[in-house]
Amino acid sequence: MWADLGLLTGKMKNITLASSEYDSVVNMNLNLFVALLCGCIVIGHYLEESRWMNESITALVIGLCTGSFILLTSGGTNSHLFVFSEDLFFIYLLPPIIFNAGFQVKKKHFFRNFMTIVLFGAVGTAISFTIISFGAIHIFKRMNVGSLDLGDFLGAIFSATDSVCTLQVLNQDETPLLYSLVFGEGVVNDATSVVIFNAVQHFDLSGFTTSDAFNLVGNFFYLFVTSTFLGACAGLLSAYVIKRLYFGRHSTDREVAIMILMAYLSYMLAELFYLSGILTVFFCGIVMSHYTWHNVTEKSRVTTKHAFATLSFISELFIFLYVGMDALDIEKWKFVQDSPGKSIGVSSILLALVMVGRGCFVFPLSYLSNLTKKNRNEKITGAQQVLIWWAGLMRGAVSMALAYNQFTRSGHTKLRGNAIMITSTITVVLFSTVVFGLMTKPLVRLLLPASENMSRMASYEPTSPKSFIVPLLGNERDPEAESGQTRSTFRPSTLRVLLSTPSHTVHYYWRMFDDAFMRPVFGGRGFVPYIPGTPTEQSVHNLIPKEDNI
Amino acid sequence: MWADLGLLTGKMKNITLASSEYDSVVNMNLNLFVALLCGCIVIGHYLEESRWMNESITALVIGLCTGSFILLTSGGTNSHLFVFSEDLFFIYLLPPIIFNAGFQVKKKHFFRNFMTIVLFGAVGTAISFTIISFGAIHIFKRMNVGSLDLGDFLGAIFSATDSVCTLQVLNQDETPLLYSLVFGEGVVNDATSVVIFNAVQHFDLSGFTTSDAFNLVGNFFYLFVTSTFLGACAGLLSAYVIKRLYFGRHSTDREVAIMILMAYLSYMLAELFYLSGILTVFFCGIVMSHYTWHNVTEKSRVTTKHAFATLSFISELFIFLYVGMDALDIEKWKFVQDSPGKSIGVSSILLALVMVGRGCFVFPLSYLSNLTKKNRNEKITGAQQVLIWWAGLMRGAVSMALAYNQFTRSGHTKLRGNAIMITSTITVVLFSTVVFGLMTKPLVRLLLPASENMSRMASYEPTSPKSFIVPLLGNERDPEAESGQTRSTFRPSTLRVLLSTPSHTVHYYWRMFDDAFMRPVFGGRGFVPYIPGTPTEQSVHNLIPKEDNI
Repeated sequence: MWADLGLLTGKMKNITLASSEYDSVVNMNLNLFVALLCGCIVIGHYLEESRWMNESITALVIGLCTGSFILLTSGGTNSHLFVFSEDLFFIYLLPPIIFNAGFQVKKKHFFRNFMTIVLFGAVGTAISFTIISFGAIHIFKRMNVGSLDLGDFLGAIFSATDSVCTLQVLNQDETPLLYSLVFGEGVVNDATSVVIFNAVQHFDLSGFTTSDAFNLVGNFFYLFVTSTFLGACAGLLSAYVIKRLYFGRHSTDREVAIMILMAYLSYMLAELFYLSGILTVFFCGIVMSHYTWHNVTEKSRVTTKHAFATLSFISELFIFLYVGMDALDIEKWKFVQDSPGKSIGVSSILLALVMVGRGCFVFPLSYLSNLTKKNRNEKITGAQQVLIWWAGLMRGAVSMALAYNQFTRSGHTKLRGNAIMITSTITVVLFSTVVFGLMTKPLVRLLLPASENMSRMASYEPTSPKSFIVPLLGNERDPEAESGQTRSTFRPSTLRVLLSTPSHTVHYYWRMFDDAFMRPVFGGRGFVPYIPGTPTEQSVHNLIPKEDNI
Repeated sequence: MWADLGLLTGKMKNITLASSEYDSVVNMNLNLFVALLCGCIVIGHYLEESRWMNESITALVIGLCTGSFILLTSGGTNSHLFVFSEDLFFIYLLPPIIFNAGFQVKKKHFFRNFMTIVLFGAVGTAISFTIISFGAIHIFKRMNVGSLDLGDFLGAIFSATDSVCTLQVLNQDETPLLYSLVFGEGVVNDATSVVIFNAVQHFDLSGFTTSDAFNLVGNFFYLFVTSTFLGACAGLLSAYVIKRLYFGRHSTDREVAIMILMAYLSYMLAELFYLSGILTVFFCGIVMSHYTWHNVTEKSRVTTKHAFATLSFISELFIFLYVGMDALDIEKWKFVQDSPGKSIGVSSILLALVMVGRGCFVFPLSYLSNLTKKNRNEKITGAQQVLIWWAGLMRGAVSMALAYNQFTRSGHTKLRGNAIMITSTITVVLFSTVVFGLMTKPLVRLLLPASENMSRMASYEPTSPKSFIVPLLGNERDPEAESGQTRSTFRPSTLRVLLSTPSHTVHYYWRMFDDAFMRPVFGGRGFVPYIPGTPTEQSVHNLIPKEDNI
C-alpha cells in the first residue's frame, strides 16, 4: 500500500510548491516548525517525570495549540504550516522510526513470541478488517453517509495499526512481552495491510470466491517472505562488506555511512518492488544489530546507536506535531458545521468498530496461543490480554496518511462525504492517541503492579530444566561463553524435549547454525577481525545497555 | 544568492514529479544512486592509500562511468538518473557539509589568520569577480558568444569558490595553515557572493558610481555581521538550553536532536532573511563545538562528532557523484556538436580567467598580509602562496548550481548561447576538480617537503616570548589550567607588546572574557554541571582526537 502512495505524492508537491510566493511562505513555516520541534524536546524533558504524559502527546498538544494560534491569527483560513505530504511521511519519516525499532528491539523477546506475533499481525488484521468493513458498510448505509465501497476502505484504513504510537506508549524495558507483541504485530500488520489494500482496490469483495482467498493468503506469504528476505540480505551484505574491508581501521564515518545507506536502500528497494518496506527495514535493522554492529569500531557503535535513535526521535516528534496542527484544518471542518451530530456519530461508530474489531482477535488468538504453551509463565494472562488490546487501539499518522490518500486530492476535498471521513479520521486519531495514550501508563501500573511486572520479567525466562538457562543466558552476561564450551552442555536428544519446548530448541539450533556458518562469514558479537599488528578492539559493555542477543 | 535559488526549485520539482509514471522511474533511479554511493565508499576505501586520488575524484569518475553506461543503454537520450535540483543541493546537501566544517575546524588556526581570511574572502573575491567579468565581456564579445550581460554573471559564477572541493583536496592535519586560509576564504566568499550576485541582478554595473560602491561595501559588512551573529546566537542558545536542562541525565538522543535542529534552524533562518546561510551555519558549528559540545554527555560527544562527519561525507559523495553523471547530459552537448572549437575555446578562456583572477589577489594580498606580521614564522612563504592559489582554483557543485540557475529553466535550455555556457561550466568544473584536484597532493609534497611541513607546523606556535606559550598551550594539554592559576602569569602591560603580537593579545583577552562571562553561562570545556548526587562526568580525551580550543 505504501508503494501506491508514492505515486500520488508528485501531484501534491505541485500544489505545495507551485508559486514562488508560496515557497517563501513554506520556508518561513519550516523555520517555525523546526523551532516548535525544539520546543517539544525541551517541554518533553520537563514533563518526563510525569506519570501520564509521553513525548508524543506533548507534541500533539503543542501542535493543537499552535494550530489554534495560527487559525486565530490567519483569520480562520488555515491552521497548518504546510500541507501533509505522504511522500514526506513514507519516504523520510517512517523508515528511520521502523529501522531504529528493529535495531534496538530485544531480539530474544521478539523471536520467542514470533508465532504469536505473526498470528496477531496476519490473522488478527484480517479479522479486524472484516469486522470494521462489515460494520461500516451496514451502519453508514442506514446513516446515508458516503458511497457504498467506503466501508472497505475504512476497514483498510483502520485495521492498519500504527507502530509509531505503540513505540511511544509502551516501554520496552518495563513491559518487554507487551512491547514485543504489540509492536511486532504492528510490523507484520504492514505486510497484511499491503495485501488487503490491494485486494480492496482490485477485487470486488462482494463476489469473493475461495480461490480469491487462497490467492490473497499466497500473496501475503509471498510478501512476508520476500520482504523479510530483502531486509536480511541488505543487513548481511553490510555486515559482510564491513567485515571484509574493516573500514574502522581508516574511518568510522565510512562504516556509519554504509550502514545508513544500506538500510535506506533496503526500504527503497522494497517500495520499488511493491513489497512491505516496513517489514524489510525492520528486519534489516535486526540483522544489522546482530552482525554489522559488532563488526564496527567502538566509536561507530556509539554513533550508530544514538544517531539512529535520534533520527527516529525527531521523526516521531515531527509526525505528532504535524498531526496536532493539521487536526484543526478549517477546510474539512466547514462541511461538518451543518451536521455536527452526524460527524460525532460517525467518529464514535468508527472508534467503537476499532475497539470491537481488535477485541475480536486479541482474546481468541491469545487463547489459541496459550494452548500451544505448556509453561504457565509463558502464557498470556488475562490482564496482559487486556493491555495488548488496549495498547493497539491507537491510530496515528499512518491512518491519517491513508485517509488523505483515499479521500482527498492534493490535500483538498470538495465532497461532503469525503470531508466527513477525513474529520472522523482526525477525531479517531486524536481521541485514541490522547485518551488511550494517556491512560496506557496508569493502566499498565494498575493491571501489572510493579512487583508482579518485575517478577514476571525475571520469571519469564524458563526456570526448568536448569540446564537450559546456563547456555542461553550465560552468553548475555559472559562473553567468554562465545567459545562454545558452555553451550555444548545441552543437547536436545529426545523428540519429547523438542516438542515441549519448541521455541527454545529452535533457538538452540539457530545458535548452532549461527556459530557454524553465519558468524565466520558475517561477523557478529565477539568478532575480532584479524589485522596483523593492530590491537584488537574489545566491546565496551557499559556503553551498550540495551543490547541483547538472539 | 542561495535564497533566490530556493524560489526557483518549486518549478523544477513540478517537471520532475509531474507524472506518476516518472515518479516510479525516479524511485528506481534513486535506488541505483544510493547503491552507487555505497560503491563509491567501498572503492574510495581501496584507493585511500593512493597518493593521487581522493574520495571526490573517485565519486566523479564513477559518476562519469555510470553516465556513459546510461547514455549507451538509453540509446543516447540522457545520462543522469534525475534532474539537478538546486533545492536538494542548497537545502539538504550543503548545510551538513559546511556545519561539519565549522564543527571540526581547528579554531586556533582559523582565528589566528582571521584578518587574512577576511581579506582574501572579501577583497579577493571582488578582485576575482572584476577580472573574470571584464575578461569575459571583452573576449566573448569578439567571439560573438551569448549576450552582453553574460560576463557579469560568469564573473559571479566563477568567483564563487567551492569550499566543498577545498575540504576534499586539503588535509587539515597535514597543512593546517593552508587549510584554514583556503577554506576560511571559501566561507567568507559566500557572503561576498551574495552581495555581488544581488548587485549583478539589480544594478547596471556599467554606470557604477562611488555611492553604489559604498552601498555594496556596507551591504557586505551588514551581511557578514548579521550572518555571523545569527550563527553564534543559535550555537549559544543550544549551549545554554543543554547546560540548563542537562538533558544527558535523561537522554542522549535529546541532546543530539537539539544540536541537529538548532544548526539546521540557523541555516534556514539565514536563508529566510536573505543572509549568507553558509556563514551562519559555519559559525554555528564553531560555537557549538566550543560550548555545546562540552556540555553534553560523553556518548553525545562521540555521536555528534561522527554523525555530523558522516552526514557531511555522504553529502559530498552525493554531490560529486551527481556532477560526474550530469556532465554527460546529452541535451546540452548537442548544441556544441556543430562548433566544438568554440566550446573548447570558451572553456579554456574561462579556466584561464579563473587562474588569472585568483593569481591577481592571492599574491598581492599575501604580500599585504605579510607586511602586518613581524614574526618570520607567521608570514606566508612563496611556496605557500602558490599552493593557496592552486588549491582555490577548483570550481564544483556550487558553480554548477549557479550556472543551471542562470542559464536554464527547469534544467533544460533551448538557447545555443546558454547551452555553451552550461557545457563550458561543466568542462571547467570537471577539468579543475580532476586535474587540479589530482595534482594538489603531489604539489603539496613537492613545495612543502614533509620535514619542512612538519617543522613548520610545530614552529608555527610563536616561540618567543616564552611566557606566551604556557598559558595559551598549557590549557590544551592540561585541563587543570582551566582554574586560571597558570594563566595569570602573563599580563600584557605595555603597548609595545600589544602591537607586536596583536592576534595573541586579542586571543588572551578573548580567553579572559570567555572565562569570566561566557563559560559561566554557556558552559564549554571543563564545564561540570552541578547536579546534587549525580556523579559528574569527566571528558575522555582519547575519544576526542581532533578537538582543540580557541
